[in-house]
Amino acid sequence: MTDFADIDPDVLGLDVSEWVNSDPIDAASLRGQVVMVETFQMLCPGCIEHGLPTARRVHNALSNQGVRVLGLHTVFEHHKVQDADALRVFVAEYRFPFPIGIDRPVPGRAIPSTMDRYQLQGTPSTLVADRAGRIRSISFGQVDEIKLAALLGRVLAEPAPEG
Amino acid sequence: MTDFADIDPDVLGLDVSEWVNSDPIDAASLRGQVVMVETFQMLCPGCIEHGLPTARRVHNALSNQGVRVLGLHTVFEHHKVQDADALRVFVAEYRFPFPIGIDRPVPGRAIPSTMDRYQLQGTPSTLVADRAGRIRSISFGQVDEIKLAALLGRVLAEPAPEG
Amino acid sequence: MTDFADIDPDVLGLDVSEWVNSDPIDAASLRGQVVMVETFQMLCPGCIEHGLPTARRVHNALSNQGVRVLGLHTVFEHHKVQDADALRVFVAEYRFPFPIGIDRPVPGRAIPSTMDRYQLQGTPSTLVADRAGRIRSISFGQVDEIKLAALLGRVLAEPAPEG
Amino acid sequence: MTDFADIDPDVLGLDVSEWVNSDPIDAASLRGQVVMVETFQMLCPGCIEHGLPTARRVHNALSNQGVRVLGLHTVFEHHKVQDADALRVFVAEYRFPFPIGIDRPVPGRAIPSTMDRYQLQGTPSTLVADRAGRIRSISFGQVDEIKLAALLGRVLAEPAPEG
Repeated sequence: MTDFADIDPDVLGLDVSEWVNSDPIDAASLRGQVVMVETFQMLCPGCIEHGLPTARRVHNALSNQGVRVLGLHTVFEHHKVQDADALRVFVAEYRFPFPIGIDRPVPGRAIPSTMDRYQLQGTPSTLVADRAGRIRSISFGQVDEIKLAALLGRVLAEPAPEG
Repeated sequence: MTDFADIDPDVLGLDVSEWVNSDPIDAASLRGQVVMVETFQMLCPGCIEHGLPTARRVHNALSNQGVRVLGLHTVFEHHKVQDADALRVFVAEYRFPFPIGIDRPVPGRAIPSTMDRYQLQGTPSTLVADRAGRIRSISFGQVDEIKLAALLGRVLAEPAPEG
Repeated sequence: MTDFADIDPDVLGLDVSEWVNSDPIDAASLRGQVVMVETFQMLCPGCIEHGLPTARRVHNALSNQGVRVLGLHTVFEHHKVQDADALRVFVAEYRFPFPIGIDRPVPGRAIPSTMDRYQLQGTPSTLVADRAGRIRSISFGQVDEIKLAALLGRVLAEPAPEG
Repeated sequence: MTDFADIDPDVLGLDVSEWVNSDPIDAASLRGQVVMVETFQMLCPGCIEHGLPTARRVHNALSNQGVRVLGLHTVFEHHKVQDADALRVFVAEYRFPFPIGIDRPVPGRAIPSTMDRYQLQGTPSTLVADRAGRIRSISFGQVDEIKLAALLGRVLAEPAPEG
């Protein structure tokens, strides 16, 4: 997304170096949608067991109600073995039904760009943004799916901003 | 609840002959709340495996956000072995954290009063009513918890009716 | 089974007043078989959630290898609402694929005959007997299915007694 | 293991290029033990979801009864991103409690040595060998844990070979 550095930290902005299994997702295309971003690392057990399955279930249940689910590979450790080539195999094997992007690496730093911007504590972390792009929730670790879905329902009920 | 027969079928009204594990729930006390009613039979396998665990999880996740979960024992078969004495043991053994009422039997009919009013197809059935008491969803069988919770979230986002 | 009172407590002997979903199981018919007895009460949550599903999985996996799974309704509390009529409905609803018997009530006592003989601590309890009828294991509560199945495999490997 | 090429294909022999999280396992040290080998690839969803959790549960339940559980990384696809460095991270993240070896790559071939020897169909595959080292079972895909554990119990009941 362009002009990422200027984006308000309370507003959703994903600094993605590559979309692995979809065409590039344009920031403008997310306007007016409720967005859930599941951040993960492909070799993080909690992501495999909890975070990504939850993202899949939310996608399956709510994508036709206006929730846009995105995955974001926020590699902050073991960079060499969790590179783009490895991620492509991982994504192909698991057949995720939602777009997965790579959080842009920052030269000289372990933590990638988007992870740093939202000060994520680790993986998995789950972000929810409303139709205006405002971050409404960031949670770290296993989430209660019912609480997450209720939040998504609340945000879905809000009108899209004019413009 | 009083005047049950006059209640609009699109409005929540529970015809309860006895509340098993709580003081009587007054219709007026539900005004302004989002209400989820889990109807079940104590010897229905799908209720034990899916319906009642979902109700428990919704209660645990959303009761402090304003969702009121109620159980309703809608016995339409095997009446003798699913009577009030049996239900009391069942409820005590399972330690449900939400109130459970008995759908009022109708003399000469298998189907009890509330079940008949809402034309429920069987058990488990799950009803959601908004703050104005309007029925917003009735589903039969195993529900998708994420869809259910998203609906509850949507309805929670609506203002309470004036009055 | 006849002459129950004379049976060695280390030997399997079930004092069954009625078989609910099968012809009577004769003691002699169990000779030479490995037998697993799942004792339960129909309103015991741990039995519904753990004990009976384990028994069903063992039956499905090992009945054709020579493991005979039996259920035994050992009612020691709430007798009135867990009587034979209630059990028959329960068994019909859950469609158990193995025979279920009723542990014989003892007049004036809460604990039924077989439960008393083996000094079971509660429900669910799981008994394993070898081909000679000797009790090899009695466990109370949720069992580790892998340990249980390994024991059954060990006992299956033993020759049937002569005679 | 030495002299792998000469080993009878009905006898357990693992051609391991490196043990990732343990000292090398010597073939002689397995004599007299029941051995279960879980073959997997670190990016194989069925291995993560079924095969490796089953291996962990068997290890936890039966290692003190004489079952030796080993993992074997049989990479036959995506070799570059499932190399030894990647496996080491994977094994460290998942904290497997049993030794994990790398099936020796064969120059110019996709399928590694041990996988080829036993003509494994894919991953996960589960091998069981008895105390004499004879292969008793090879299964591909999700296994029934109760059947697997019963087989292990049967084999545990057999005496160790003399010698």
